Amino acid sequence: MPQIRVALVGAGGYGGVGLVELLLKHPDAELVALYDVESIGLPLSQLYPHLQGFCDMPITHVDDRDPSLADVAFMATPDRVGMELAPDFVAAGARVIDYSGDFRFSSEEMYAEYAVRIGKPPQHECPNLLPISEYGLTELHREGIRKATIVGNPGCFAVSCILGLAPAVEGGLVELEALVCDAKTGVSGAGKKPNPAFHFPARYDNMNAYKLTGHQHVMEIERELGQLAGEDVQVTFTPQVVPLCRGIMSTLYARLKEGVHSQDLRDQYETFFADEPFVRLLPEGKTGSNNDIRGTNLCELSLHTDERTRMLTIVSHIDNLVKGQAGSALQNLNALFRLPESTGLLFPGRYP
Amino acid sequence: MPQIRVALVGAGGYGGVGLVELLLKHPDAELVALYDVESIGLPLSQLYPHLQGFCDMPITHVDDRDPSLADVAFMATPDRVGMELAPDFVAAGARVIDYSGDFRFSSEEMYAEYAVRIGKPPQHECPNLLPISEYGLTELHREGIRKATIVGNPGCFAVSCILGLAPAVEGGLVELEALVCDAKTGVSGAGKKPNPAFHFPARYDNMNAYKLTGHQHVMEIERELGQLAGEDVQVTFTPQVVPLCRGIMSTLYARLKEGVHSQDLRDQYETFFADEPFVRLLPEGKTGSNNDIRGTNLCELSLHTDERTRMLTIVSHIDNLVKGQAGSALQNLNALFRLPESTGLLFPGRYP
Amino acid sequence: MPQIRVALVGAGGYGGVGLVELLLKHPDAELVALYDVESIGLPLSQLYPHLQGFCDMPITHVDDRDPSLADVAFMATPDRVGMELAPDFVAAGARVIDYSGDFRFSSEEMYAEYAVRIGKPPQHECPNLLPISEYGLTELHREGIRKATIVGNPGCFAVSCILGLAPAVEGGLVELEALVCDAKTGVSGAGKKPNPAFHFPARYDNMNAYKLTGHQHVMEIERELGQLAGEDVQVTFTPQVVPLCRGIMSTLYARLKEGVHSQDLRDQYETFFADEPFVRLLPEGKTGSNNDIRGTNLCELSLHTDERTRMLTIVSHIDNLVKGQAGSALQNLNALFRLPESTGLLFPGRYP
Amino acid sequence: MPQIRVALVGAGGYGGVGLVELLLKHPDAELVALYDVESIGLPLSQLYPHLQGFCDMPITHVDDRDPSLADVAFMATPDRVGMELAPDFVAAGARVIDYSGDFRFSSEEMYAEYAVRIGKPPQHECPNLLPISEYGLTELHREGIRKATIVGNPGCFAVSCILGLAPAVEGGLVELEALVCDAKTGVSGAGKKPNPAFHFPARYDNMNAYKLTGHQHVMEIERELGQLAGEDVQVTFTPQVVPLCRGIMSTLYARLKEGVHSQDLRDQYETFFADEPFVRLLPEGKTGSNNDIRGTNLCELSLHTDERTRMLTIVSHIDNLVKGQAGSALQNLNALFRLPESTGLLFPGRYP
Repeated sequence: MPQIRVALVGAGGYGGVGLVELLLKHPDAELVALYDVESIGLPLSQLYPHLQGFCDMPITHVDDRDPSLADVAFMATPDRVGMELAPDFVAAGARVIDYSGDFRFSSEEMYAEYAVRIGKPPQHECPNLLPISEYGLTELHREGIRKATIVGNPGCFAVSCILGLAPAVEGGLVELEALVCDAKTGVSGAGKKPNPAFHFPARYDNMNAYKLTGHQHVMEIERELGQLAGEDVQVTFTPQVVPLCRGIMSTLYARLKEGVHSQDLRDQYETFFADEPFVRLLPEGKTGSNNDIRGTNLCELSLHTDERTRMLTIVSHIDNLVKGQAGSALQNLNALFRLPESTGLLFPGRYP
Repeated sequence: MPQIRVALVGAGGYGGVGLVELLLKHPDAELVALYDVESIGLPLSQLYPHLQGFCDMPITHVDDRDPSLADVAFMATPDRVGMELAPDFVAAGARVIDYSGDFRFSSEEMYAEYAVRIGKPPQHECPNLLPISEYGLTELHREGIRKATIVGNPGCFAVSCILGLAPAVEGGLVELEALVCDAKTGVSGAGKKPNPAFHFPARYDNMNAYKLTGHQHVMEIERELGQLAGEDVQVTFTPQVVPLCRGIMSTLYARLKEGVHSQDLRDQYETFFADEPFVRLLPEGKTGSNNDIRGTNLCELSLHTDERTRMLTIVSHIDNLVKGQAGSALQNLNALFRLPESTGLLFPGRYP
Repeated sequence: MPQIRVALVGAGGYGGVGLVELLLKHPDAELVALYDVESIGLPLSQLYPHLQGFCDMPITHVDDRDPSLADVAFMATPDRVGMELAPDFVAAGARVIDYSGDFRFSSEEMYAEYAVRIGKPPQHECPNLLPISEYGLTELHREGIRKATIVGNPGCFAVSCILGLAPAVEGGLVELEALVCDAKTGVSGAGKKPNPAFHFPARYDNMNAYKLTGHQHVMEIERELGQLAGEDVQVTFTPQVVPLCRGIMSTLYARLKEGVHSQDLRDQYETFFADEPFVRLLPEGKTGSNNDIRGTNLCELSLHTDERTRMLTIVSHIDNLVKGQAGSALQNLNALFRLPESTGLLFPGRYP
Repeated sequence: MPQIRVALVGAGGYGGVGLVELLLKHPDAELVALYDVESIGLPLSQLYPHLQGFCDMPITHVDDRDPSLADVAFMATPDRVGMELAPDFVAAGARVIDYSGDFRFSSEEMYAEYAVRIGKPPQHECPNLLPISEYGLTELHREGIRKATIVGNPGCFAVSCILGLAPAVEGGLVELEALVCDAKTGVSGAGKKPNPAFHFPARYDNMNAYKLTGHQHVMEIERELGQLAGEDVQVTFTPQVVPLCRGIMSTLYARLKEGVHSQDLRDQYETFFADEPFVRLLPEGKTGSNNDIRGTNLCELSLHTDERTRMLTIVSHIDNLVKGQAGSALQNLNALFRLPESTGLLFPGRYP
């Protein structure tokens, strides 16, 4: 099989370099172009010296792109860049995998609501492409992804919360009011750009919550869980930053319905994730940790039920830059091109 | 006024050294004896070299204690040590401030339940002292503390959760089912003893939950909130460890009762904490951070209500070694001896 | 005695806030004005929320300064700001303590050489003030400081290196060729401004050397050691950044002259620092650590001689923001106003 | 070619798990047995949960070893274990790669001197194997390694210092007196075992020097540099710990001989390392960082000459657990079995 030719837009950010690192291990895909709007002409390895000798490809201005070179274009770009560039790549016959919220919603109305949350204009720039797009949480949408032209890669927090709650909600095992997603992320989730809040002296010994009651990822979570439940779902979502680099730990709370037992729940999770290469469901009594999945495309889940309060607590660990971003994107490439989904993605992290 | 003479049992641990540091700033109390069961004869500054020149007092074996020397004895000791030593100090006329769970419960029955949770024998060793003891969350029990002989200093997590939820519960503003306390602690909460989970390479880039559904601090939280509510309260409590040294951030979730508005809630909190020197209630729209309170005896609270879901989210920050331990203990000394409660305790941390 | 009235220019940076924290503990000095060129009108505690309730004084634009208010003005400002403002304060009768290199050199020629190293114009803006200025390493220049009007506070690296080598050089115990100062600093040394190199994800697991062979602090080191030696001294100085917040560890290498023994060296250091409140000379066989001095105005030194190679290795620890900056500046205030030099400055750090 | 069968003794430590991680990527070698003296019967992935699904092989007691299973045995073990087990593996026809100092010295006399430094008995247990052993710094000894039966893998500090200084010393470009190696290591260098000095709260904001003038790695450095120089060499070596997990930065100081210019030096380094896959010599004016090499088998070097002082400063970065341990060991396997030396070892780290 010829190699799948990959163009990467937004090469200079963490989402871009993360994809480059993963592509170096992928047997069936190769990078053909790196696009960005700055650092033009510089080899990627000048921005990221750890890539010296591994990816010295220069960065081309995205205005000078040649969409015909690529079988697939990854948009590792901020909101509203993907929707500007996607039509061009699609017209040239390429698929598109977009990291932002641009293609996470199938209707203009939902997009508009999302856009308002992030302070952007409500109009989608290419609504005609929405019908050929799919939400890229591969575990829930692989059939749709295989048929799609554009994939809207999910938000990092959303991946951890949706995977953690999906089986319980789909199985009708929990009450749908008062779902709580308490999420903690490492600092890399904020991207590459320096910021007073992420300056080392301000951050190394700090933790804080932010965007309480207003984070945009809550929409994806509610939409996905609502589809699984067959009814509207309301989620309280609290993003928090803790002083480590990579990793999301989402602690998820839902009340078990009367009569649902711990074993029912476990059965449902085991069935739901039976063939998933990237979901590691821990056995009863075990709790995971960021160490277990850092650097990998895995989502690690543990289930904890309290008979006394009927509360189900689920702890969900992912690496925000891999399963939460570039890894999910590459998993979607595998799905789009009907490769085994774990191609080039099934490896452990390093420890310590 | 003569200085209050302080004996410290358990000088060698973090709880001990934290009290020593605070006493160096206290104008009305002075250290007269350091007791422990190891490092006997060594100056404290040999264990903690930062104290060279500031506290070079040697450590005496606790078996060689002289209870008559002290007006108050701090037990910075593990569970069941305080109950063994307290009778002796009480007999000599000293007050006792105990850091462990030994005197946090006023009945033998509650103590037994607690003891089982931490894997200890259910019998209290000096039940006759329970009636002269008080639970040491000063903000809620200062009247009792002033009359008590023994103070059971609260658990660090409990301080952050109870202070965060107390006004809402006391005011009857929230539903009492499904209260969730999602707590994150820095590593110093685990104490001084090395442990594989807190070895730097295992911890610096890690986070995890532990003791899900079974942590012992939940009992204090439920008891205190229940007293404020006038009915039984059930709390789901999840302790988690994040890679910083000092600090607890507890994110607290409670559903607002129908008809309760954001301003009602804020009014209640402002009234409840109106004269508290150590509670910093942030104005609407602000969120706190560990940086704001690290190294201090402050508890910083922010309130967030979501009209859409009727969920109240409270973020509560404390320094686990100060307001969560030695600072609370010293605040209790001030209460016991009827000094202004902020004596020697009102200072900012350093930054960065 | 009336309080010494302190004006602070550059209130918003780490050097400014560090001084504010220290002044809160100083019995004889009080802050009367905070100046800066941004955040005008905001209380300092809005920039630094840990100061809420402790320093809520608003920031005034430096162009609106009133030099007559202050007995002393601290310039916690970048190079070439102090020399612009000092004349004004001096004319009004105030002393000036400047954090930058503006007043570290007594001649226009030396200043010019320094200025070139940091990419600034070589002309000093107020050469007429140089004769009434003194270099502010208090341990070596307290007599001069007492008589001076302006103090040029030393560079943070310079403090650690000069204090470490001064006795050996002054005593003629080491060869003066090939002195090596290998210095590691925490990230706070780079100041408050975000920067790609100090963004948490780029820094938390990183270390690197920079400005090899060209750092400007080498000039102070050579000048001071040269004065002590009575001849020219050449120093190789390597600054390095390690992932912690506060602290400098300088490892200093000098060859012992033939016939000099370990005890000669120790005698010289003990004599040299006999009455210094802020130098902690460790006993034979002990090595210090950043933990011992973090947050304090102390310099901790250990001496290590290798009979085999005749190499003397000295490890010098300071807190770059205290003894390396605001603490030294306050020590200079004490000297200027003939207070006991340790007034308000002698306290241990907190641990852990 | 059949797979090279690898037995690993000391599977449970960082050196063991590091090798397992690397073997998962090696195309020509496979793990056949994991030995240790504890955790017997447990899958390695129970000790290191990140390996779940990747290496679930159980640990066998080393006393139950079958030397005939393996083509090569790695001894990821403390000093004096390799010399006890090596004869058995050698007798069965296997090669041995030992991580400790047991086979780093070719004579009983040198071993004895080394042993004394680490507080061990001076007698080597199998001196008859010394003649068939080779020092495993592959870049300097690959010819010898290809012919050897046993490889004594170098010390982590030694790798960084020897590679950094070797060309200068071999080329006769520097004075041999007063060579200084100032080395900083991340905490993983201390291994897996918890220790008060590496407990997170004691370490996260700390740095210190240790074993000044007495570290055992200095012997390897002096021996290797002495062989290259053709005369005795004395080195001053200072190990220091900084708060990161993986990485060594050694800053190396040597005086250039009169008449040696910067370009001479650069030419010599370029020639010396011309064909080395794992040495990255940075161009003039660039400085490296731990980020560039973390997680890899690379050694990154930068050269800095100061015309003024004739001092050469070299900064040498390695990952102590890869190029400083398991990676070097695997590079030696490649050499022993005459595979291309970079087989399975040439990959970048991940960033951030």
